[in-house]
Order: sequence, then structure tokens, then C-alpha cells
Amino acid sequence: MSQQTAINPRRDEDFPEWYQEVVRAADLAENSDVRGCMVIKPWGYGIWENMQRALDGMFKATGHKNAYFPLFIPLSYLAKEAAHVEGFAKECAVVTHHRLESDGAGGLRPAPSAQLAEPLVVRPTSETIIGATYAKWVQSYRDLPILINQWANVVRWELRPRLFLRTAEFLWQEGHTAHETEAEAKEETMAMLGVYEMFAREWLAIPVFTGRKSPGERFPGAVDTLTIEAMVQDRKAIQAGTSHFLGQNFAKASGIQFLSRQNKQEFAWTTSWGVSTRMIGTLIMAHADDDGLVLPPRIAPAHVVIMPVAPKPETRDAVFAAVEKLAADLRKLHFHGEPVRVEVDKRDIGGGQKNWEWIKKGVPIRVELGPRDLEKGSVAVARRDKGPKEKEFLPNADFISRVEEILQSIQDGLLDRATAFRDANIVDIDTKEQFYAFFTPKNTEKPEIHGGFARCHWCGSQECEEKIKEDLKVTIRCIPFDAKEESGACICCGKPSGKRVIFAKSY
Amino acid sequence: MSQQTAINPRRDEDFPEWYQEVVRAADLAENSDVRGCMVIKPWGYGIWENMQRALDGMFKATGHKNAYFPLFIPLSYLAKEAAHVEGFAKECAVVTHHRLESDGAGGLRPAPSAQLAEPLVVRPTSETIIGATYAKWVQSYRDLPILINQWANVVRWELRPRLFLRTAEFLWQEGHTAHETEAEAKEETMAMLGVYEMFAREWLAIPVFTGRKSPGERFPGAVDTLTIEAMVQDRKAIQAGTSHFLGQNFAKASGIQFLSRQNKQEFAWTTSWGVSTRMIGTLIMAHADDDGLVLPPRIAPAHVVIMPVAPKPETRDAVFAAVEKLAADLRKLHFHGEPVRVEVDKRDIGGGQKNWEWIKKGVPIRVELGPRDLEKGSVAVARRDKGPKEKEFLPNADFISRVEEILQSIQDGLLDRATAFRDANIVDIDTKEQFYAFFTPKNTEKPEIHGGFARCHWCGSQECEEKIKEDLKVTIRCIPFDAKEESGACICCGKPSGKRVIFAKSY
Repeated sequence: MSQQTAINPRRDEDFPEWYQEVVRAADLAENSDVRGCMVIKPWGYGIWENMQRALDGMFKATGHKNAYFPLFIPLSYLAKEAAHVEGFAKECAVVTHHRLESDGAGGLRPAPSAQLAEPLVVRPTSETIIGATYAKWVQSYRDLPILINQWANVVRWELRPRLFLRTAEFLWQEGHTAHETEAEAKEETMAMLGVYEMFAREWLAIPVFTGRKSPGERFPGAVDTLTIEAMVQDRKAIQAGTSHFLGQNFAKASGIQFLSRQNKQEFAWTTSWGVSTRMIGTLIMAHADDDGLVLPPRIAPAHVVIMPVAPKPETRDAVFAAVEKLAADLRKLHFHGEPVRVEVDKRDIGGGQKNWEWIKKGVPIRVELGPRDLEKGSVAVARRDKGPKEKEFLPNADFISRVEEILQSIQDGLLDRATAFRDANIVDIDTKEQFYAFFTPKNTEKPEIHGGFARCHWCGSQECEEKIKEDLKVTIRCIPFDAKEESGACICCGKPSGKRVIFAKSY
Repeated sequence: MSQQTAINPRRDEDFPEWYQEVVRAADLAENSDVRGCMVIKPWGYGIWENMQRALDGMFKATGHKNAYFPLFIPLSYLAKEAAHVEGFAKECAVVTHHRLESDGAGGLRPAPSAQLAEPLVVRPTSETIIGATYAKWVQSYRDLPILINQWANVVRWELRPRLFLRTAEFLWQEGHTAHETEAEAKEETMAMLGVYEMFAREWLAIPVFTGRKSPGERFPGAVDTLTIEAMVQDRKAIQAGTSHFLGQNFAKASGIQFLSRQNKQEFAWTTSWGVSTRMIGTLIMAHADDDGLVLPPRIAPAHVVIMPVAPKPETRDAVFAAVEKLAADLRKLHFHGEPVRVEVDKRDIGGGQKNWEWIKKGVPIRVELGPRDLEKGSVAVARRDKGPKEKEFLPNADFISRVEEILQSIQDGLLDRATAFRDANIVDIDTKEQFYAFFTPKNTEKPEIHGGFARCHWCGSQECEEKIKEDLKVTIRCIPFDAKEESGACICCGKPSGKRVIFAKSY
């Protein structure tokens, strides 16, 4: 018997296509006419606003302040850090003119007289422009540390864009800090990764692996890149946030120097760390199901949607009044310190359509209230983590007193489910044969969910890393912080290795 | 006897230079190496964050949601609305390439092979790209209204940039709404101007004039532009926010059409409205004095700064503990629903320097707490709206119980002072001679504060408007909503006029 689902195809039929459909059905975002640039619609942006508020609070609680730096970077700045330019210079939007003029045929063209002496690059990331600014701000050790974060848009040209996961323009935060000592900068790098891990777990209900990147996967110009890696439902990895220890590389390139306590000129130690709207893509792939988006309550733009059921004009006013009263009562309550977020959907459309729209949008709790409920003083409550037709009839007061508990139970349930899924799909592999079999789909005619995370020994050479990438499109996602010391043989070349790393296909 | 001030020159000596010095001394922003693009420093960005939070709350309370649209606009979009292109096309950052390559000499250049088929413009404003999106979203009257706001950066090339007031890149919000009827769109335009007026008055302590722009000063493409006009301390005007009724102009250019209740294809009625980081410039010019910035408490990044005075090591721990206790007690209190914002400045620098830094930053209340205060259980409290040396010794508990009242008194005092200043510098002028004398400085050797707002009759012709602009650099700031009907003669040509408009020099 084939099961009807709101999203077609289902995850097991065609995961990439399912993803696009969920984004569409939940009304999160769409492609614009500008190649690679997306329009983030209100429901999707609402998720981003909640991510921003949560992270911003944590950044401030750890001593950071926000600031804002220019969108444009002079071309010569990018060329300052050699590794950095290699990694980023190839995919930038380049501004060459500062004025338009009529083309004489009803259109416009860049005015040849307004060509810039030095082209400007739309920031792909801001290390270089922020470095140049810090160089002016820092003279003495007394000016350190600088602990600044920026919320901004950045642009990296993409040939194969994909909503949220890989777009030419995306929104993010980028922390940029400068320190007196190496130890302090390393501590900062680790502390901010800790913030990301906690945010992913507590807010997004996503259990992530934390660790460091192999040299081949580092941020261009970094000494060390730390990462949080999430497993999503096709068992691939998404790098959901990174924190970079930049050593003195950028300080040297930008001239961030200070007079030390020992009265010597020294270069500062810097870090940078960021998460982006890609986190929304991660959230979707981690929790959505074949009926659409499933939102962890802490990040949902609405916790509860109330749908009045009032088919007859004579009961309409009473039902609407009861619905508004319920909404007002709920809004007085708090979930994790924030007022409960309630949407009331009074649109004049069919109840079935309305209900399914909210299922697809992933709102944690749906409430129906009609004339009969009103008589009985009860409401019909449905949870997004249960089947679409399951509902519980609860006395009004009971629902109100239990709403916080229900939200927490959904939040916890999603984390448990994601954790169980992850644990079921991570394996230790010790032979090359098994490794290749693990990452090779059985059916090559259509997308097939296969593989997972493989914990394997690796000799540390870039050669082995590259061979595996070339053969299987599998990369080292991270060298986990908690990998235990054990001797083994590299999964690729057989040379000795001291601990396991995590291999996976990734977005 | 000459008075020492923290800012040199003083306002009456050189207002433009004084402004730059206040921005610098308060550590608000600085110029970057990218011409016209500023770096907004943490204290300046903190003000912007407070503006954002306040306005965002009001937008949401009036039914708007946030969304995000692309940074880039295809060149052909800009050319769609004829008046719009005239107004904006001339000063845009134009992206022509999407990749860089090595120039063979250690530098980089735009890759000739990566030239875009159609250049992209960095948004100077988003009517055209948002219009193209709304055209896809709207089919029926049921899809209306669309009530969306965007927080974003925009770029308009500037030849003579000035921090906050006129920068190539600036931050703003732009509301874009689409409606079924003309009346509804006009109501929206007016309602959002009302939000701006209220925000300026209640948060920024700036009394503004509200009214409509003359045709010559309208937003390019708008049918009607409403404005809030602030008077700052050199008696010039700043247009601090605008709300545009766009009629069906942009809907026609973008194809925003819907099937009406009468089953006919109709064009939507649209509006747009925005305020920007220019508001920070307005705030500075409205309230700062010869000792630096003066912040209305509701918008200040910190309400209170506590400075421990602990010259001797043996009292240091006790003073620091008392300071932290006081900060914690204050943070439990609320001012207009938000926790009282407290900075504790424990830096190891001279007390005089520290005190003056906070005066220049404009923090509303400064508190000193030293060993002798500790013994007496009191604190030394100084208000930014009083002289820099005035302080009041208050028992600890008294200060805590009075802090909200003191903040409100500063907030009210600033509004009263700005209102009195404005009222003292607005005059009714009825002869051309007086008008020209009013707007002509007596001393032309150095900048001189002169003029003010002149309420005068105007015949309504663009000719007279342009003549006055050319002769005096004076423009019609607005046609006030509350201008009473009275017959008079145009200040320029003498022809009959039915009401007075406001003339002023402006930023």
C-alpha cells in the first residue's frame, strides 16, 4: 500500500529533490532572477532572526560586541595573504564602475568615464578589511583583546547554487578577534566552537561532531580550523559552523602590531568564526520529514498556530473571540525565557488546506477550535512530531498549563531522534574494501541514500586524503577532539595511524 | 574668560568640524580605506542596534514581517521605471565580473573570461528587485496585502561622503508593501510615517515636522513622498525618514497584477518607507554638545557606567566587589521594559581620563564608587545633561530606587531642550528680502550658524523652488500636514498661495 505524503518525492525516493520541495512547501525561500541569489521569505527569515537572537545573546554574554565593516574590499587587500587569495580570489563579485549612463537605446550601461582605478571586491569574508582596520586600532597590549562580531551579507560566486546550502549571496555572522598571546587566541577559537556546538544541540536539536579540519580542508590562511559537523538524513555531513585560529598570518599580512608588556613590537594573534544561513539548510535536512518541515520549538517563528473552525456565520464571532482569548493567554507564558509565539490563522480557506499548510511549515503545535470545542471548553491539539492526523482533545486550561511542557517534549524528542539516527549511521571501518563498499551506492540510476559517517584510521598524508576524495567524493569531516589514542592502519595506504578520523560525503 | 571644552572646535566655532570631532571622540565610526565606506565601531553600532530593536518591534506590532532580497539588481530592472532610473542610475556600484585571476605580477585582476553578460548593480534601494518578486507572489486579491520589511545595506556612490550623514554604503530598513486599493496604500504610507515620527520623539528625543515633499523633492518614481524633518543645532534640516506612496507606478513597471474581487486584472498599489544610519548623524547633531555626544537614555548602548575609584591595592577588592554588586542590582531594574544597561569600567587608567571618555561617549549616567563612598554607603552620580563637574552624592539604595526616574528625566529634558531650540528657530517670513537675509550668513570667512526654518507661502511652482535652491541652497523641507489654510503671497514670485511650507538649508 503506498502512503500519501505532503512532499513528493519522499526522502527515500529522491533526497535532493525532496529538499527543494520542502523549502518550497514551507515557504522558506526561492531563487531570484539574479543567478545564485535567493529571496528569503518571511517564514525562512523568521528562523534566521531566531538564530541571530540566540547567537547574538551568546556572543555578548562571552564579551563580544557587534560592529560593521565595509561591503567592499580593495583588490590589493585580497592579495596580501597568499593562501587566502588562493582560496577566495577565484569566485568574487567584482565592482569596476561607480556610475551608469544611458546606452542610447533606452537601456543603461556602466559609464566608461566612471571606471574605478582599483576594482573593489564584494566581501567573500572580511579578514583582510577588518585586519587593516585593527592595524589602526592596535598600538599597545592595552588595546587587546579586540572581541568583535559582524552580522553581514557576503558573496561567493557559485556555479551550482542551492537554496540555503550554497548561494552566491548569503547572510552570516563573522567574529574577528585579536589577542596578545597565542594561548588566548586558541582559547577563543575553542570557546566559540563550543558556543556553536551548544547552539546546534540546544536550539536546533542537532547533535554535532566537533573537531579540527585536516590541513587540506582548512580555511585559506588559517593555522587551524575547528568545525561542527552535522549528519543529515541522507547520512551526508554538513559543515555547519567553523572557528579558525589564524595564528599571526593575517596580523602579519595586515600589520596588526603592538607594543608588548616587555616593550617589544609583536604581531597580534587573531581568530575568526562564523555560521551562516546554511544553518537553515542543515536544520531542514536534519529534521524535516515526508510531510514537510519540522521545526524545533526554540527556533520556530511560531510555537503554536491556532486555527478557528467556524463554518457558520452565527458561531463565527464567538469562535474568533475564543481564539483571540486563547492566543492572549498563551502569549503571557514563556518558553525558555521568551514569550510563547502564537499565530492565529483566520484566513477564509478550507480547514484541510490550512492545516496542511502549517504541517508543511513545521510549526510545533497546531490547535483547532470550533463551535463544539467552545461548548466543551476544550481544544484539539496536534503535535508536529506525531502523525498528521493524530490529535488530542484537551480542556482549555489543561492545554495552557501544559504548553511549555509539550514544547519541551517536542524539542527533546527531535534531539533524541537526530541523535539516534546519527548513532545508527556511524561505523568504525578498518578495511579499504569495506570503506569503498560503504560509500558506493548500489543503485546508480537514481539518487540513493547510502553510506554514513565512517570512523577510520588515517596516516595524516594529504595524498591519501585526495585519493579518497577523488575516488569516492568522500572527505575527512573532522579529527574529533575526543578521538581516543589507538594504533591502527590508514584506511587508504595502510601506514600506521594513532587515532580515527571521521570520513563522509558532504554538502 | 575662555571656557575649556572637550571638543574642539566648539559648535559655534565650526559646526561641521565639531561634528567630525564628536564622531571621533565618542568612538562611533571612522572612514575606511574604501572611499565613502565607513567602519561603524561598537559604540556607534550599539546605537544602531537599539534603533533596530525599537523600530523592528513597531513594524511587527503593525503587522509587518521581515524578509531578505538579493543585494544585486540586474541592470535591466533599474531601467524599468523611467523616473526611478533618472534618480538612481547615476550613482551605483556596478559589478561586471565574477572571478579574479592572477595578473602575472603578484597581483589580481578581474578575469576577462568571467565578464557578466548583464552587469549587476549593488542595490541603491530595492523597489525594482522586490517588485519583480511580488509580481510572482501576487495572483489574486487574496494574496494582498503584502507587508514586508528588509534590514539591509545599500550603496549609492557619493563624491563628498560624511560619516553617517552621507556614505556610499549605509545600513537601513526598507519597508515594501503592496495593497489592493489606493486608499489602503495611502493609509499605510501615513501610518509608517507616524511610526517614524513617534520613534524620533519617544526614543531619540527629537521633535520632527511631518509633511509631504514638494514634487521636486519626491523619491524618484513616487506619487507622494512623506517625510520627517528634524532641526539640528546649526538650524539646518535633516530628512530623517521617508514614506512613499508609489501609486501603481512600480506595480506597472514590475507587473504586480491581481485578479480583483470584481474578477478584473488590476495593478497593485505599493508603498516603500525607510530610515537609515543617517538617523545616527541626526541624533548627534541634535543633542551633542561641546563636550561630546549626549545620548537619550532609550537609545544609549549603556544607561549607566560605573567607574570604580581604587587607587590603593588594599581597597581594590572591596571596591570592585561593591561595583559588581551595584551593577547586578541595577541590571535587575527596567527602563521602558528593557533591563537597565550597565557598563563597569575597571580599566587601569586615570580616573579623569576615564570620566572624560564616558562624557564624550554621551552615556546618560556616570557613577563613581571609591573607598570613602564604600564607607559611607553612597555613590557619586553625574548626569550627562548637567555640567561635567556636577555630581550628586546619593546613598546607594536611593540611587538604585531613583535610577529609572533619573533616566526618564534625562530623556524628557533632552526632548524639551530640542523642542525649545526648534521653536526658537522657526519663523514666519513674508517678504523676499527678509527671506534672503535670513538665509545669508553675515560672516562668509568661516562657517557660521545662521538661518533656521522659515514658514513661508509658496505658489507651488517648481520654478520658484529651483530659484531659491540655486540662490540660497535652501529647499522646501516639507508641506506640513498641519499647515493651516490662509491666503498669502509666494515668497519668491508673489503669486497667491493657500498655505505655508517649511524652507531650510539641509544635510
